[in-house]
Amino acid sequence: MTQKPLLLIPGPVQTDPRVKAAMAQDLAPWDNEIRPRYAALRERVRVIAGGREGEHVCLPLQGCGHFIVEAALRTFVPPGAKVLIPNNGNYGVRMIRLAREAGRIPVPIEIPEGQVATGAMVAKALAEDPSIGVVSVVHSETATCVINPMEEIAAAVKAAGRRLIVDAVSGFGAIPFDLGAHPETDAIVFSSNKCLEAMPGIGFAVARVDRLEASRGNAGSWSLDLADLLHHARTYGWGSIRFTPAIQSLAAFEVALDIFEAEGGQPARLSRYSENARILHDGLAALGLTPWLPRERQGPIIVNMHQPPDPAFSLQPFVDALKRRGFLISNFSTTTEPTFRVGAIGRVFPDDMRRAVAAIADTFEEMGVRQLAREALAA
Amino acid sequence: MTQKPLLLIPGPVQTDPRVKAAMAQDLAPWDNEIRPRYAALRERVRVIAGGREGEHVCLPLQGCGHFIVEAALRTFVPPGAKVLIPNNGNYGVRMIRLAREAGRIPVPIEIPEGQVATGAMVAKALAEDPSIGVVSVVHSETATCVINPMEEIAAAVKAAGRRLIVDAVSGFGAIPFDLGAHPETDAIVFSSNKCLEAMPGIGFAVARVDRLEASRGNAGSWSLDLADLLHHARTYGWGSIRFTPAIQSLAAFEVALDIFEAEGGQPARLSRYSENARILHDGLAALGLTPWLPRERQGPIIVNMHQPPDPAFSLQPFVDALKRRGFLISNFSTTTEPTFRVGAIGRVFPDDMRRAVAAIADTFEEMGVRQLAREALAA
Repeated sequence: MTQKPLLLIPGPVQTDPRVKAAMAQDLAPWDNEIRPRYAALRERVRVIAGGREGEHVCLPLQGCGHFIVEAALRTFVPPGAKVLIPNNGNYGVRMIRLAREAGRIPVPIEIPEGQVATGAMVAKALAEDPSIGVVSVVHSETATCVINPMEEIAAAVKAAGRRLIVDAVSGFGAIPFDLGAHPETDAIVFSSNKCLEAMPGIGFAVARVDRLEASRGNAGSWSLDLADLLHHARTYGWGSIRFTPAIQSLAAFEVALDIFEAEGGQPARLSRYSENARILHDGLAALGLTPWLPRERQGPIIVNMHQPPDPAFSLQPFVDALKRRGFLISNFSTTTEPTFRVGAIGRVFPDDMRRAVAAIADTFEEMGVRQLAREALAA
Repeated sequence: MTQKPLLLIPGPVQTDPRVKAAMAQDLAPWDNEIRPRYAALRERVRVIAGGREGEHVCLPLQGCGHFIVEAALRTFVPPGAKVLIPNNGNYGVRMIRLAREAGRIPVPIEIPEGQVATGAMVAKALAEDPSIGVVSVVHSETATCVINPMEEIAAAVKAAGRRLIVDAVSGFGAIPFDLGAHPETDAIVFSSNKCLEAMPGIGFAVARVDRLEASRGNAGSWSLDLADLLHHARTYGWGSIRFTPAIQSLAAFEVALDIFEAEGGQPARLSRYSENARILHDGLAALGLTPWLPRERQGPIIVNMHQPPDPAFSLQPFVDALKRRGFLISNFSTTTEPTFRVGAIGRVFPDDMRRAVAAIADTFEEMGVRQLAREALAA
C-alpha cells in the first residue's frame, strides 16, 4: 500500500480515520438500533443550524449537494414561479440551471465573478419585480471562495416580505447562519462531505415546518420532495428513512458530528479553516503567485491562485507531481480565468497547509516553473 | 464489539468483507487514477446487462433505486404522456406514484398481488389505448418476490411498436434480461446494493443511445435527467462523474463486480440465490409455516411466510430474538396480509439459510409460538 495523499479539495474532504472506519459495515436502515440514532442525528443537525424545536426540522436526502438544492427549489418555489438568484460564480450558474430545468423561472442578478452579492442588489431586484416570491442564494460560492453576506441579504428579503433559500453546501458547519434568527428563511441546505467532514452521499435541508406544510404538491418529483420527507417522518416516525440511503455515509456522519462537537463546533471549525486559508493565501503569495481574490474577500473554504504564466507550467502535471508529494488538489479550474485551487477544509490542519505550501514550491522547482506572478504577463 | 448479525433482507444486502473494506478510504471523484476505473466500471456493467457497444451506455446516478426509476420515467416518458404500468405489488404502486408526481399519466394494469403480469395483459392494454407510448415494468416485484415474465411482456411491447423500461432494481445480476436482444427496451435500471452485492448509494441505467438522444429536454429535472448524463459523458469523458457521488460506494462496487465475475456472473448468482430461496421456502414450510406464494411462483430474492396465527407471535419481538441468534430480517411486511420475509440475496450461502431456518425454529420455541400454519385459523 502506498501512502494515500491528503485531499486538499472543497469536498469530498479528507476525513478522520474514525469516520472512514464507520463506513466498513453492513447496516439495515430500518433496524431498531438505527432508528433512534437517526432521529437523534436529525435533532443534532437541526440544532447546529440554529433551527428551533417545533418550528424547524432536519430532512436528510440521498445524493449530492445538487440534489438537495434542486429539492429545495422544487419544494419552495411553485412550478412556473420566479426565483431570484444572485449569480457570482459557477454554483450560482448551476442553481439557475437547476431552477430552469425544474420549470421554475430563475431571475438572475448577474454579478462579476469574485464580487459579492449585496443586500442592496437584492432589495432593488425585489422592488422592481413584485412577482418574485423566493430568493435563493449560494452562501459560500465554492468556485471562487467568495462568501456572500447572508445577514444583509436575508434582511433585504425579510424587508420585502419574500422568502429565502440558503444554499450552504460548501460552508455549513463553518460559516455561520442562525436559522432561528431568520424567519424569512424557508430552508438551509448542505451536504455531508464538506465542513462537517463526513463522507459524501447525503444532503440535508433544515426547513420551516409551516412552509413545508404550505408547499405540499409543489415539487413535481416524489424523489426530490422535501414536503413529502416531512410527511413521511410524521407518518412513519422520525427514525424512519424514506427509501434506501447510503446508510454507511449516515453512520460515518454520526461519527463526524461527534468529532465536530468535540472540536468546539462551528466557531472552532471556522477558526481552523480560516487559519488554513490564511497560511495558503499568504504562503502561496510569498512564493510569488498571484492570489485570485484580494485578501479581504478570501473565504476560508478554498484558495484560488492564478496559474503561473510560465510555459513550463501545466495543470495536470503539476497536480500529479504534487500528489507524489502527498497532496491531492483539483485538476480543474472553477473560475473563468485559469487558476489552481487548494482546499482549506476537511481533517487538515495549519501544519498540513505549511507542508503543502512547501510541496508546491518544490513542485515548481522540479517543473522548472520560475515565472510565478501573473503580473509578469503584463510587465 | 458484538458479532454483527447476518443481513437476510432484500437490500442493502450482506456484503463480502473486501467490499466493506473498500468503503474506508478518502477519494476524489475526478482523480486521474479514478477516471479510467470509472469508465471501465461502466463498460463492465453495460456488458453484464447485455448492452451493445455503441448502442447502449451505462449511466450511474447518485441515490437509491427510486431515484433511478424516476429518472428513467422522466427521461423516456415525455411530460403529460401516458405510461402503462402493470401493478402486482408495492413496487408497482411506487412506480405509479413516481410517474404521477413527475407529471406523467400512469395507466395501471391492476393485477392481484402475488399474480404475474402477462404479455397478453400488456398486449390488450396497448391495443385498447394507442396513445400509450411507453410500458414500465417491475421485473422482480421485491414486495412479493413474484418475477414478472419479461420476455413475453417485452414481446408484446415490441409487437405493438411501443417502448419498454425495465425496473430490475431487486433482480439485476441474478434474474436475466438481455438488453442486446431487446431493441424495444429504452433502459434497464437497478441499484448497487441488491444482487450485485455492493453498497447502497448508486443507481444505474443501461440505456439506448438513440433513445437518450431523442429524449433530451424531457426530464424536467437536471438532477434526474439520464439524457444529460450521456451529454456529460460525451462532453467531459466517460471517466467523468457528474456531481459528487457516494464515491466510496463506487469503489466498493468495483470490488463487488470482481467478486461477481469470479463467482461466475449472473448464472452462478441465480443458482445460489435459487438454492437459498428453496431452502428457506421448504425449510420454513416444514416447520409448519404457510408460504405466502406457491412454490411455482416463488422467486429467488426473498421468501415471504404468513405470520403464525398464534397470539404468542409478534413481529418486532420475533425479529429481535432472531437477531440475537445472528440473523437480521425485516421488521415490516410488504404484502397486504401480515407476513414476515427472509432475504435470499447478498453474500449469504445455503448453509446460512439452513442455520437461519433452525434459528427461526428456536425463536418460535423461545417465544412459545406453537400454532404456525395459517390454515389453522380456518380450522
